[in-house]
Amino acid sequence: MKKYTHLILVGVILILTALLAGVLIFLKSQPPQPRAFQPIVEVAPFEPDSAVWGENFPNQYSSMLLTAENRADTEYGGSSGFSHLERDPRQVILFAGYPFSWEYNDDRGHAYALADVEATARVTASTHATCYSCKSSNNPALWAEMGREGYDALLFSEIAPRMEYSIGCANCHEAGTMRLIVTNPSLETAFEAQGIDWRNFSRQEMRTVVCANCHVEYYMVGEDKILTFPWANGTRIDQIIAYYDEIGFADWTYPGTGTPMLKAQHPEFEFFTAGSTHYEAGVACADCHMPYVRDGAAKYSSHNIHSPLFDPMAACGQCHTDVDYVVERVNVIQDQVFAAKIAAEDALIDAITALSVAAADPRADPVLLEQARRLHRRAQFMWDFVSAENSMGFHNPEYALSILTEVTNLARQAQMLAAQATGNLDLLQTGVYYTIDPPPAPASPP
Amino acid sequence: MKKYTHLILVGVILILTALLAGVLIFLKSQPPQPRAFQPIVEVAPFEPDSAVWGENFPNQYSSMLLTAENRADTEYGGSSGFSHLERDPRQVILFAGYPFSWEYNDDRGHAYALADVEATARVTASTHATCYSCKSSNNPALWAEMGREGYDALLFSEIAPRMEYSIGCANCHEAGTMRLIVTNPSLETAFEAQGIDWRNFSRQEMRTVVCANCHVEYYMVGEDKILTFPWANGTRIDQIIAYYDEIGFADWTYPGTGTPMLKAQHPEFEFFTAGSTHYEAGVACADCHMPYVRDGAAKYSSHNIHSPLFDPMAACGQCHTDVDYVVERVNVIQDQVFAAKIAAEDALIDAITALSVAAADPRADPVLLEQARRLHRRAQFMWDFVSAENSMGFHNPEYALSILTEVTNLARQAQMLAAQATGNLDLLQTGVYYTIDPPPAPASPP
Repeated sequence: MKKYTHLILVGVILILTALLAGVLIFLKSQPPQPRAFQPIVEVAPFEPDSAVWGENFPNQYSSMLLTAENRADTEYGGSSGFSHLERDPRQVILFAGYPFSWEYNDDRGHAYALADVEATARVTASTHATCYSCKSSNNPALWAEMGREGYDALLFSEIAPRMEYSIGCANCHEAGTMRLIVTNPSLETAFEAQGIDWRNFSRQEMRTVVCANCHVEYYMVGEDKILTFPWANGTRIDQIIAYYDEIGFADWTYPGTGTPMLKAQHPEFEFFTAGSTHYEAGVACADCHMPYVRDGAAKYSSHNIHSPLFDPMAACGQCHTDVDYVVERVNVIQDQVFAAKIAAEDALIDAITALSVAAADPRADPVLLEQARRLHRRAQFMWDFVSAENSMGFHNPEYALSILTEVTNLARQAQMLAAQATGNLDLLQTGVYYTIDPPPAPASPP
Repeated sequence: MKKYTHLILVGVILILTALLAGVLIFLKSQPPQPRAFQPIVEVAPFEPDSAVWGENFPNQYSSMLLTAENRADTEYGGSSGFSHLERDPRQVILFAGYPFSWEYNDDRGHAYALADVEATARVTASTHATCYSCKSSNNPALWAEMGREGYDALLFSEIAPRMEYSIGCANCHEAGTMRLIVTNPSLETAFEAQGIDWRNFSRQEMRTVVCANCHVEYYMVGEDKILTFPWANGTRIDQIIAYYDEIGFADWTYPGTGTPMLKAQHPEFEFFTAGSTHYEAGVACADCHMPYVRDGAAKYSSHNIHSPLFDPMAACGQCHTDVDYVVERVNVIQDQVFAAKIAAEDALIDAITALSVAAADPRADPVLLEQARRLHRRAQFMWDFVSAENSMGFHNPEYALSILTEVTNLARQAQMLAAQATGNLDLLQTGVYYTIDPPPAPASPP
């Protein structure tokens, strides 16, 4: 009896071993595991035409097309492309001598990025291709072909014939895998300068990082106008200013005051990630601007990127249950930031008015004048960092208000230094731009 | 057969009707429904001794006793009773000529309210009973006995023998019903002035309103020092300043500058209810400062009132799941408000320094001097509204930062007006308090 039992057990072991070996050999002979989605068409690397990607992802594609339909405005932003200079003529003064005083229109939807950059009065005959960097899904292929340096060295007009499509799939996705990737070589370089390899980011982190392909502060280096992010010290505003000061960079010289100025671009990424409550809670840009929506049984991330205020139920409602309440919070926060921003503009204009007169005075103390210019430069860039950021402070409310507090303080100190430099007490008056000592008229488009 | 059926049915109906009538008559003859809780002892109206109330509510009472045990500090507040003047000597200058420059200690727990007011150097022989208003559970009975006017007209020393207990049950609860009530007649009057009847508030609203029995901005009217809340225009800071300006009130005259000053008290109620995110979300003071806790099977609101930062799991954890995250948010917000507050203090001291020198100059332009004083008054009260409020801005972060932005702007403008009034450009220097033009030394205790 015992002998039979042993025999049976050994037999079973042998049969199982044989079966296991057979299964393993069978698996080994199979083709690699298929992708999670079954593509209808193969998308070539850097494919610029989003319609091709759209064959595989019709919901995402068709929602992206809707960015052309958004025309409405929110209280402080929106999609109509209104003129900031008309809404707030203080900015004509603040950008005097710089193209933003000629034309400064609000951004429209991604579908209009290409058309709008080609229509802007700020582009001149000497503008470089660099200014196309955030405007077209043709770019990733062009950067692969000619590199950041080769691309930027061209003139805007020279590369124009290669621009077919506005912003699209190729600006954020890797063809084939659909992985979210850094496509702008300048972003790659900026991360490297900080010792960061973006390939280690989680998908949720990439749902913020891909926006940094464009929604960042940048400047252009050298004659070839190489697109560069000023992040070597970090992305907080003090670190960015320290960077610009260290390299002695200026975007333009303010007419009359002689201040070496800095223009802030659209630092949404730097602003949001500087310890904002939503960022610290793990929320990504895409959570609010590309919320998950349904079409029948399909759930997908809307690619109709716009202000969450146009559909707060879809955006805020992903996490917040009382959407009316949170929209009211947004309004309160934006109203507070707007009031502080306008007060800062008034203080800056008082400083500019005083400094213009002081700089024209040959007896003015050059040391005090230089101190005043340094404060003007710093204060105006800090103001612009909040003003040019597309959320009227909402992406990081306390950060916005903290910055604006310092702007007003520095601007008033610049004004005082101008008066001290000249001994001219009239320069201490406030809110008198239009009646006394007009600063130089804004330069006109060439 | 049919006849019998009818008879039986009619009989049943009659019996049921009789039973119903009997039950109703029985119920009607019963005593009124007993209270929801069965008191062990009857508590007399205005009973000052919390130990008596504690017989009925041992958990609430024993947790209240714990306010005597809290000795620790948070980053910016806490329960040790530290000296604000030692931590931040700028405040010695800012309160020069006023008792807060002699002694300004942080508040300790409710258990120490009575001992601390009796120990403070700010109480002098001429101090009125008014200063006991928020310090003792004896007060509701005393107000019932002598009225607000009779109470306040007495001297501090005259009413001292009637003070037996620190803050306790009678300060917020109605004996018998345990209803939350307004006990301070000044709060009742302040609501009336706004056309508000607090008896219409919900219990959740009262969980904030009872704190306004004390945690508010106030001033004292006339020779009898009647405790009055400056709320007739509303409770926002602009409305409070407008009120004080309309009645021409000043707490003291700043030595040297001649500014008619306002001292802010502890405007937690006004600050929190001015559209803060927590208040708008329906959160009451008690939700965070008196969170629900358990003792065995009993669930009760902790009466160990202290900073939520001492036990964020109990306080924040009532609503927030990620308590580490929200504590980190509190830290970030408070650090930002603190930095803006210190910058505002520096600007105020620069303004005071300049104005002191200008006011001493007989040739100074009196109109410009007067304008400078007006800005100094307004700016310093606004700063104090944030500084004296016990949350380093957290109760309403954007409100705090918005206010401080304006403070710095107004203080710098006051400094400029002082320079204009005298033609003395030295007054435009910043941060030079200790080296140039020292303002008058702070007054000493009498």
